[in-house]
Parts: sequence; C-alpha cells; structure tokens
Amino acid sequence: MSVVEEVLEKVAVLVEPNEEERKRLNEIASLLLEECRSRFNTVEGFVSASIEGSAAKDTWLKSKPELDIFIHFLPGVSREAMEEAVIKIGGEVMRRIGGQSRLRYAEHPYVEGFIDNITVNIVGCYEVSIGKWISAVDRTPYHTQYVNSRLTPTLRRDVRILKSFLTSAEIYGAEIKVGGFSGYLSELLIIHYGGFLELLKSASHWRPPVIIDIEGKVNKKEALTLFSKSPLIVIDPVDKNRNVASAVTLTKLSEFILASKIFLKNPSTSYFMDKPMLVPDKLESLAEGRELFAIVFNLEEYIPPDVIWGELRRSAEGIKKRFEMAGFDVYSYGINEHEGSVAIIFELDKLSLPARFVHRGPPVWMDDALRFVKKHLSSPDTVAGPWIEDDRVYVLKKREETMVDMLLKKWLAQAEVSISKQLYKAFSSSRMIVGWKEVLKILGTGIHAPFLNKFLTSRPVFMDHILRKD
Amino acid sequence: MSVVEEVLEKVAVLVEPNEEERKRLNEIASLLLEECRSRFNTVEGFVSASIEGSAAKDTWLKSKPELDIFIHFLPGVSREAMEEAVIKIGGEVMRRIGGQSRLRYAEHPYVEGFIDNITVNIVGCYEVSIGKWISAVDRTPYHTQYVNSRLTPTLRRDVRILKSFLTSAEIYGAEIKVGGFSGYLSELLIIHYGGFLELLKSASHWRPPVIIDIEGKVNKKEALTLFSKSPLIVIDPVDKNRNVASAVTLTKLSEFILASKIFLKNPSTSYFMDKPMLVPDKLESLAEGRELFAIVFNLEEYIPPDVIWGELRRSAEGIKKRFEMAGFDVYSYGINEHEGSVAIIFELDKLSLPARFVHRGPPVWMDDALRFVKKHLSSPDTVAGPWIEDDRVYVLKKREETMVDMLLKKWLAQAEVSISKQLYKAFSSSRMIVGWKEVLKILGTGIHAPFLNKFLTSRPVFMDHILRKD
Repeated sequence: MSVVEEVLEKVAVLVEPNEEERKRLNEIASLLLEECRSRFNTVEGFVSASIEGSAAKDTWLKSKPELDIFIHFLPGVSREAMEEAVIKIGGEVMRRIGGQSRLRYAEHPYVEGFIDNITVNIVGCYEVSIGKWISAVDRTPYHTQYVNSRLTPTLRRDVRILKSFLTSAEIYGAEIKVGGFSGYLSELLIIHYGGFLELLKSASHWRPPVIIDIEGKVNKKEALTLFSKSPLIVIDPVDKNRNVASAVTLTKLSEFILASKIFLKNPSTSYFMDKPMLVPDKLESLAEGRELFAIVFNLEEYIPPDVIWGELRRSAEGIKKRFEMAGFDVYSYGINEHEGSVAIIFELDKLSLPARFVHRGPPVWMDDALRFVKKHLSSPDTVAGPWIEDDRVYVLKKREETMVDMLLKKWLAQAEVSISKQLYKAFSSSRMIVGWKEVLKILGTGIHAPFLNKFLTSRPVFMDHILRKD
Repeated sequence: MSVVEEVLEKVAVLVEPNEEERKRLNEIASLLLEECRSRFNTVEGFVSASIEGSAAKDTWLKSKPELDIFIHFLPGVSREAMEEAVIKIGGEVMRRIGGQSRLRYAEHPYVEGFIDNITVNIVGCYEVSIGKWISAVDRTPYHTQYVNSRLTPTLRRDVRILKSFLTSAEIYGAEIKVGGFSGYLSELLIIHYGGFLELLKSASHWRPPVIIDIEGKVNKKEALTLFSKSPLIVIDPVDKNRNVASAVTLTKLSEFILASKIFLKNPSTSYFMDKPMLVPDKLESLAEGRELFAIVFNLEEYIPPDVIWGELRRSAEGIKKRFEMAGFDVYSYGINEHEGSVAIIFELDKLSLPARFVHRGPPVWMDDALRFVKKHLSSPDTVAGPWIEDDRVYVLKKREETMVDMLLKKWLAQAEVSISKQLYKAFSSSRMIVGWKEVLKILGTGIHAPFLNKFLTSRPVFMDHILRKD
C-alpha cells in the first residue's frame, strides 16, 4: 500500500460513522418520518415525506450527522400554503421529538432543528417530474436517486474523505459566505473521477474554466456560453441547464487546485484536522507595523446569512474601490459576521493620504487654462504653482482630510461610496478603528478574535502542511 | 493709444539703449575689430573679422550689451588650427583691450570676455556659401544679413520688448538649461508677425506643434516629418533644413503661450521686471508639510554648461523613473547648478515606502505556484500568507529598506538606476537630505537658496501678474 493510500485508510476510520452511530441516525429518521407523515396527512395536497441529503445517500460525516426531511406537495398547492404548513407542523414535529428548532431561510423558509448532535432540516418541496421544477429544491429527490444509483461502498468512503478534506480546507459549503463545494457537488466529483485520489490527481492539473459533464449532455462551447461566469462548471445529471458548481468562486476553486497539488506532494492525515487557534502574543507580532483599518457594527434585525453576506461583500468591495480611487492601495480585506456583530478589516499601504497632492489642469492651449490658473492662484489651499509641464498646467494643493476614517465618514455622508442600501445606516454609524494597535485592542479578544487571527495570518490551513511531514 | 500700447511705450524706454550706450558699444566694437584684424592677419587662412549678433542687428537690450566678434577662415583651414588660433589670439585681444576672458565651449570652443559691462565673445567660423556649412556658426553672418534686410526701427523696438518679456518670464535662451527662445528666433518671430503685440495675439491661440515658415520654403507635412519632435518649428530663412526653434521645449513653449494669454488679458510693465526674492520666513511656510528630498554634490572638474545640464536632466529623469517604479509618486523635481555645486530637489508623495507590501505570485494552475508557496512559507520576511485571490497566489512581505535615501543609495550601489556615467561617482557620494526641515536648513541659505525659493513656489513669474493691475 502506498503512503497516500495508507493516509486515506486512516482518514476513513475518522470520517465513517460506526454501526451504533448509523443505528441512532436511522432510528431518529424513522421517528421523524412517522411523525411527519401522520401530522402532514391532514394538509391539503400533501403527498409524502422522505429522507434526502447525506443520510439518504449514506455520505454523512461521522462528526456531522444530519437529516434532511423533505415534505412533498402536489404542484397545485400554493407557495404560501406550503410554507405555512412546513413552518407550523415542522416546528411541532421537532418539539414532539424533543429537539430545539428555529426558522431558516434559503430560497424559501424551512425548519432547522437539533436532536442530540444531529442537525435536522424539514423542507417543503413539490412532487414534480423532471424538468417541471417549481421550487429550487424539487430536484433534490432526483439527486438522491441519481447518486444512489452510482455510488459503491468504496466511492461512499471517498465522498466522506473528500468532504472532510474540503471542510478542513474551508472550501466546503455552497453558501455565499463560503462560496465553496456543496455535498451533492462532492458526490458528483467522486462519481465522475472514480475516487478521491483520482479526483485530486486531475484537479491538480485543472486550469479554470473547468467543465465536467458526467452524462455527456452538453458540448463544451454550449456550457461555456450558458455558464460564462463560472470557473467550475459541473452539469447536473438531472438537469442539463443547471451548473451544480455555480456557487464555487474562482478563489475557492483555486484553493482546491492548490490544496490538491500540496496534498499529493505531501500526503498526511493532518489535512483532515482542524488548525489550532493562535495564542494572543503571536497575534501582536503578526499585526505589528501593518496598516489596519476596521469597521465594526451590529445588525439591527435578523437577515438571512446568504443575504447579509451578499450585501457585506458588495459593500466591502464598494469601499475598496473608493479607497483605491482616493489613492490608497488595498492589500486585502476580510469580513466577519457573528451573531449579528459585523467586523470588516482592511489592510492598506497607509492610513492617511499625503497632505499635499498635485492637481492636473488643462493644456495651456485650452480656454480653460486661464480660468484654472486664476482659480488656483487665489485659492487658500494652493501650496505651490500653478506651473507648466509639457503642455499642461499643474498646481500643488493642500488636502483637507487625510485620515482613512475621516475620509470614509465624509464619503458616507455625501453618498460618495457604493454601499448596500440596507446597510447604509449601519455603516454610517459604525465604529471605525484605525491602526494595528487599536485593532488588536478592540478585536483581539471577544467574538471577532478568531477572525482577526485568520485575517492576520491570511493563509489557507492546507498550506501549512507543505513544509511538514507526519 | 490703447492701454497695451501705452505699456509697450513705457517698456521701450526701459529696453532701448541711449545714444551714449550705443556710442560706447560701437567704440569697443571698432577697437576689437581692429585688434582682431591686425593680430589674426598672420594666421594662415584668415579672411576677415566681423561683428555679428544683437550688436550687428541693433537688437541688444540696454541692460545686456554684448558683442559677438566672428573670425572668418577659409574652408581649407583645419578645425584644430582654427580653434587653436581663436583661443590663443582671442585671449590676447581681450587682455590687450583690458578685459577679463575665459574659455567657453559650445559646438567648438570660443573666448568669452568682459569689458566694462559688455559681454564679448570671440568665435571662429568658416567663410562659406549658403548650404556649404562646415561648423554650426557658419550660418550666423547670413542670419545677420537676413535680419538686417527685414528689420525696421519699429520692429527693432519690438524685438527688444520681446527679448525683455522672454527674459523676465525665464523663457529666453536656447541653452539646454533653459530650453527657450534664442535671440535670432525672437527676431524672426517679430519679422514674421510684424510686431510684438501681433506675435502675442497669435501665440495666445497656438496649439503645438506650431509651424512658422517665413519664406514659404517647405510644406507643413514635410516640416512635421523633418522636425517631428519639435513642438515649435521655425524654418531658418537661410537654411530650410534647419529648425531655428529646435531648442524650445514643450514646457517653455507652453509657458510662452500662457504668458501671452495672461499679458493680453492684463497688460502691465511688471511683466518686464524681475521678481523680488522671497524672504526666509515665507520659505518656511511654503515648505511646511511637503515631502522633500534633495541631492547635493560638487562637480570635480569643469564641464561645459550644455553638457552638464544634459547629464543632470537625464540623471534626474532616471531617478524619477526609479522612484516611480518603486512606488513613489514624483510630484516634481528641480535642478540647480551654481559654480560647480549641484542641487536636485524632488517633491514626493511620501519619504518612505510602506513597511509591508503585497507580492503577487503565479496563478495556481502554473507549476511555479507550489515553488512560490514553499519559498515564501519558509522565508523570514514573510508577514502573512500566502493566500489565494481569484486564480493567483499572493504573499505579504516585510520591506527591508523603506527610506528614500537608503533606497537610492542601494540602487546606486547595485547600478539599478539610470544615471549619467560621467556623474555616477558624484551621485553615489552625494549628500542626501530627507524631509522639508532638513532641506530648508541646508539649502535655505547659501548659493542654492534662490533655487529652493523658486522650487517651492513652482510658479512662473508671469503668473503672478494675472491677479494684479498696475
């Protein structure tokens, strides 16, 4: 057995649930199904209840047992009626089984609950034939069917290994916050390549855009046109008009490519472990001398994660662009949201703009030149000039506002920065923290500390393995 | 009489020599001619001696009397023999008349002397027919002839007014240090436009490139091809293959255009006066808060002005480019040379580079990516990362050297900056002055003080008139 195969054998033991764990999941699944069937039976248009997701496909991680209960309705049922029934009865079912529950939102609301350490989702869908989709999750039962028709015990092992690999590398999850690989995508990749090692060997040679069409349903050109913005295109075997990997960002795909290269070069079980938190004194030496600027605020109301992350990304990008327009270099930025508290950290080349700047005027042969000279000669913020270089007039001006926080406040007040409407008030009244010492003092402890740690390190966990051997 | 005509009448009085001054110049001219004729007579190939330049054309300024004595030789005389004779006998003539003299260099050496307040140049040339030029000054006698055939007393007055206008605006002089208008060019412009006011009215509407062809000898397209790098093209009436304005830089031409606009808008005699020197306390308030960096050194040997100014410009431009490559913004720079002491001042956006910088690596799909990650992971000057953004690897590095002077010293030592070979040693061992306070302390008094003053003001003198009335 090769080194890498030995590593995977060891990992398999860590990720595969044992008999007892499987039994416990199945018992709770039966209980939930029974309860749902009897309670939803009175709802008009109810068809059936089924287990979907990783439990139905036997691809769940030992450390992450989860049950997706799908409640199937006839197409005639209205969206509102279905959602109302799922929220009301789903909540009752969770309480009946003895679990805690809360309402979540994706394309439509669903009930999330916890029973022991098992995450349970109760989701409503329409019972439709292929292609007649009404809601986004109507494909799911067909996904389950397809995956089960293709997976073998060995491939199931490899799906689990891949999910664990992606989770440790922080590339797992299709939510906007992550922009990574979903469970279904992981399964399809294993099916297509015939195993974890085969997938990684191939991925280590990928150059985006990458197209994978398991069932050979579309041609390459067509796929590139249809999904022109996706760096990774995986045609859904159940619906050739859908890219299963549409959530995957170029950054996350690139991380996966590089992680594959590094793992193959240096295989070890450590790729499947979590990274230890850095201790505070390491934080200080990491932050020292860096030009950090942070924005902190609280969200006033609950906003679904995919919505808030979309808005935060857009807003941070807007601020970045405004900074660059003003003359800052933005090295990088990071966003964190934790229980309604938001922190955005920017690393810049400087925290203030030069106190003097050159203002370029028109060429001398334009009528405007004389007006420019007159205006700036009599202006109190003119430091030197106007002078002429080549055919243009220039003048050296005093800058009114130089500090990064004061500038951003001014831009926010004058609507000169592109920020999500929904968050404009939050940004405008946010706390602004200037300089690495202040940032460390305020974000170095408390809920944002792990995020600060990660931002200052700026290194995907899988990279650390490159220099080390087991 | 219009306001502007009144102004010109007043200026004429200031610039035209009186009878006594004319008499004095003519007397010295006769003396010099006589002395030259008798002394050069023994030299083989000597033809004659003549007065050329502004004295011969009666276009000299009252404040600047000057005599150009041309010694004409037969074309058969070698360059060396002619130069030797001019240097030796020219010097004797000057001493005989009671003047001081020194050797100067243009295309070939000549003797410069001073008698009372009159500047005397003794220059050798070849007596050749039009087009058979051997040395660059062989055209001069023909220039004198041409100008005298076209000038009237009124135009002579206007030539003097123009020369005075250009001198005050610091646009007068074809030497590299100035890059402005020669005396002959001034005369041709007055001849072409028929007067000072007519010239300025036209110039205020110029848009470079400007072509002036008094005798209509070439077509526009031909001229633009022949003199493609010249913003101002004035065809020499004596030689259609020569641009009389070839020394004029775009900056100086643009200054002339703008000065014309300003004068016509606001005519006054003050355009023909010198500007008073700023007092030191004004200097401090001018310099405050500006990011200044200066280089000071002494030239070890005499280098002709046109040579040294060429080399200094090229070197300053090389340093500017290197600064920009490294991440500095160069707002402007200025050069001064005074009796062998050189000062170059740069105004920048900052005096040090950020202590941390982002280093961009290859895309993840390149083989190099892994090597990049390995190298920077184990490098002690890596601060954070490597991380991935879109498809590339990046890393945050510590910058070894950040201060402008230390950086320039390093580049000089490693030959990583384009500096004139002749001045490399001088630059390498130069004194470097960082920050406005230091620059003010060291250059604010002494020989470079007027230059510092001018640099900090960065305003052509003629601009100040725009806001003021006589």
